[in-house]
Amino acid sequence: MERKILLPEEELPEAWFNLIPRLPEPPAPPLDPRTGKPINPEDLRRIFPQALIEQEMSPKPWIEIPEEVRKVYRLWRPTPLRRALALEEELKTPARIYYKDESVSPPGSHKPNTAVAQAYYNKVEGIRRLATETGAGQWGSALSFACRLFGLECTVYMVRVSYQQKPYRRTLMHLWGAEVYPSPSERTEAGRRILSQNPETPGSLGIAISEAVEDAATHEDTNYALGSVLNHVLLHQTVIGLETQRQLSLVGEKPDVLIACVGGGSNFGGFTFPFIGEILEGRLSAEVLAVEPASCPTLTKGVYTYDYGDTAGLTPLLLMHTLGHTFEPPGIHAGGLRYHGDAPLVCQLVKAGVVKPRAYPQTACFEAAVLFARTEGIVPAPETSHAIRAAIDEALKARETGEEKVIVFNFSGHGHFDLSAYDAYLEGQLEDYEYPEEKIREALERLPKFPTGI
Amino acid sequence: MERKILLPEEELPEAWFNLIPRLPEPPAPPLDPRTGKPINPEDLRRIFPQALIEQEMSPKPWIEIPEEVRKVYRLWRPTPLRRALALEEELKTPARIYYKDESVSPPGSHKPNTAVAQAYYNKVEGIRRLATETGAGQWGSALSFACRLFGLECTVYMVRVSYQQKPYRRTLMHLWGAEVYPSPSERTEAGRRILSQNPETPGSLGIAISEAVEDAATHEDTNYALGSVLNHVLLHQTVIGLETQRQLSLVGEKPDVLIACVGGGSNFGGFTFPFIGEILEGRLSAEVLAVEPASCPTLTKGVYTYDYGDTAGLTPLLLMHTLGHTFEPPGIHAGGLRYHGDAPLVCQLVKAGVVKPRAYPQTACFEAAVLFARTEGIVPAPETSHAIRAAIDEALKARETGEEKVIVFNFSGHGHFDLSAYDAYLEGQLEDYEYPEEKIREALERLPKFPTGI
Repeated sequence: MERKILLPEEELPEAWFNLIPRLPEPPAPPLDPRTGKPINPEDLRRIFPQALIEQEMSPKPWIEIPEEVRKVYRLWRPTPLRRALALEEELKTPARIYYKDESVSPPGSHKPNTAVAQAYYNKVEGIRRLATETGAGQWGSALSFACRLFGLECTVYMVRVSYQQKPYRRTLMHLWGAEVYPSPSERTEAGRRILSQNPETPGSLGIAISEAVEDAATHEDTNYALGSVLNHVLLHQTVIGLETQRQLSLVGEKPDVLIACVGGGSNFGGFTFPFIGEILEGRLSAEVLAVEPASCPTLTKGVYTYDYGDTAGLTPLLLMHTLGHTFEPPGIHAGGLRYHGDAPLVCQLVKAGVVKPRAYPQTACFEAAVLFARTEGIVPAPETSHAIRAAIDEALKARETGEEKVIVFNFSGHGHFDLSAYDAYLEGQLEDYEYPEEKIREALERLPKFPTGI
Repeated sequence: MERKILLPEEELPEAWFNLIPRLPEPPAPPLDPRTGKPINPEDLRRIFPQALIEQEMSPKPWIEIPEEVRKVYRLWRPTPLRRALALEEELKTPARIYYKDESVSPPGSHKPNTAVAQAYYNKVEGIRRLATETGAGQWGSALSFACRLFGLECTVYMVRVSYQQKPYRRTLMHLWGAEVYPSPSERTEAGRRILSQNPETPGSLGIAISEAVEDAATHEDTNYALGSVLNHVLLHQTVIGLETQRQLSLVGEKPDVLIACVGGGSNFGGFTFPFIGEILEGRLSAEVLAVEPASCPTLTKGVYTYDYGDTAGLTPLLLMHTLGHTFEPPGIHAGGLRYHGDAPLVCQLVKAGVVKPRAYPQTACFEAAVLFARTEGIVPAPETSHAIRAAIDEALKARETGEEKVIVFNFSGHGHFDLSAYDAYLEGQLEDYEYPEEKIREALERLPKFPTGI
């Protein structure tokens, strides 16, 4: 039995899969917080290239991948779909477990799928520099890598707690030529304001987004790049799900359960959307699980309403599950999952009942990650460990029921730069954070007053 | 043009390639230092399983790979052969550059090719624990991984300077369930003796080997595992070269230059031996370059004579290029290349003129590694950067002469756990070490007095 299902380079998808025109309801538009009306796409020109603004609300079912982007993708794509034979054996489950291995990209995660596309479109439209935020550093390193390949400069605002916990991701960004600042920083007004209020803040993705957006908006030759949440980002990630569909069909399998972790929603969306297209058309019946940390339980405990994408309130309002844009999640090791909101497309699917959210505490996830490393070999990123936890639980459930389920999850990235977290776990020093109900209530009280959600 | 040449799992080699019976001269036997006579294979039974002792001097041209070993190999093998299109473009060279990517294994290097085989044979012969040494940690993590998969315990003596410089490789070994000690340690007589002479010693592979051999020799249920140097280790690594031969033939290429770095010689031997078989039979004409660090210039400056494999003098005498078994190389970042000797098979080929050695200082290698990461994406291990430096130099030479050479090198491992070294390089803090001529002369004076080499 094969452990890897590989695709040759000529099977790299030629177009991204756009879920928008296939949804039963059109997505709610982003709103301008000053007017409460849908934003004018022209307003986004200050920070995004035209091509990406068009993709954001495109009605086209497929969007062609430029050849220059495909050329770079081929450095590591198509990625392997792996059969977790050793894990299955260990769990004594009748389930068949597959994982799509996005850890094989040079930055070690799925993030370059969109970073490369974004760098390309910005380059084509004459931009000289990109500014961005990063949590755990996965996105920042992916964008540094992509900018380097297209000759763009790159400035990264890195959430302070990760900047301190993960010095080597910073080195990786430097290695690919980017400049990196801990966020909040003194470089932006948003950063200075937050530092003056709370000099000890661990930072958050929301704050770092504020800084990067401000940097881009105040420099003519600079655009902003976001690593998740927005429709065009999830669009670029659909190469993951498209390849997975093809790979499963090569071994004659149909998924019963599809699993990915959710921070902003990009690996989740990229992996599941092509399958959700099949589900919406009645061609596939599968459970779709979105797994998040119990300490930042956006989909499981958040409110579905319009909120800012960042902390300072510089972005348009997005309709999503949110813990409130001023929510500062505790400094858990899965830095990529510390975001107060979620991709509006993912939230819409949760609201519609197509996607089921689930939350796990971090030690349960590290336990799953260690079991995975000791059977399949690969060391997972702490973010990815959430998907693994759910996959293992589903496989154990199948053992109880005796069902030969096909469980497929997205292995979003490796944990080579997260070994300090494993060290803490192995030494018994990792704690689960209490769900900070009161902190979320406070943050929700600071939600924008209008519009009041739909 | 394809960037990757992939092989399906059914093309994983079924047998290892044994160079020994194809050599014009039989290899010189290891000698017993007490008698000066060839060692009795029975003497090795204290620390090695019978199957590996037989492989060490086997006259068979091919040795079947057990199915249990192939099953584990298939977690990551066959590995990709990559075409370095972006690097070629950057160098404006007419040369075509290929690299065999051994970094895709879970521990991140070629080392598990032999670790898995050694763990398997020891398990089959009833051994409960393996003891070993590790320099940079590549070998230690590979053996930890392999032991875990076969249910063996694993004890690793890690060269102290690497133990301090590379804490995350230690975590990796812990993650796979091994116990790890900085060497020299207080756990062995060899370690205690060296510590009493020089408490500040950075350690060396030679010292760590002494400790691991002593641990194995003094415990009935424990064997020793070596990550390089010995014939059976290089034998297991030949899957690299066998796959590369097949992959090159798929794209209709014949190599003009073959390159690998040399520490103890295992990735070099594994990659080149199948090609050297062709060269010896007159079916291939290619230059074969063995690249080592200028600060530990075994092949380029060492003496070809019988010497101990370890520092304390516990091993048989091996005929090899050596800097003297008491040589303590400076603490360069390519920890895997800090060994006073080299594999006898590799040395014999250097002596015969089939293999050409070349030495580079470390900053030149890091410069090459950064250029590689900024074009091909992947971050190389400092050891691997030596092969990259040579490949780049050969490609630049081809640019001058206009020759369309086919340059193929072994990408032995990634540098994800070596980012502190890149940090130092990028900050301009990395220095080249002077070739310590006097230190080598001193060490050579302490060579065993008999026999006096051949």
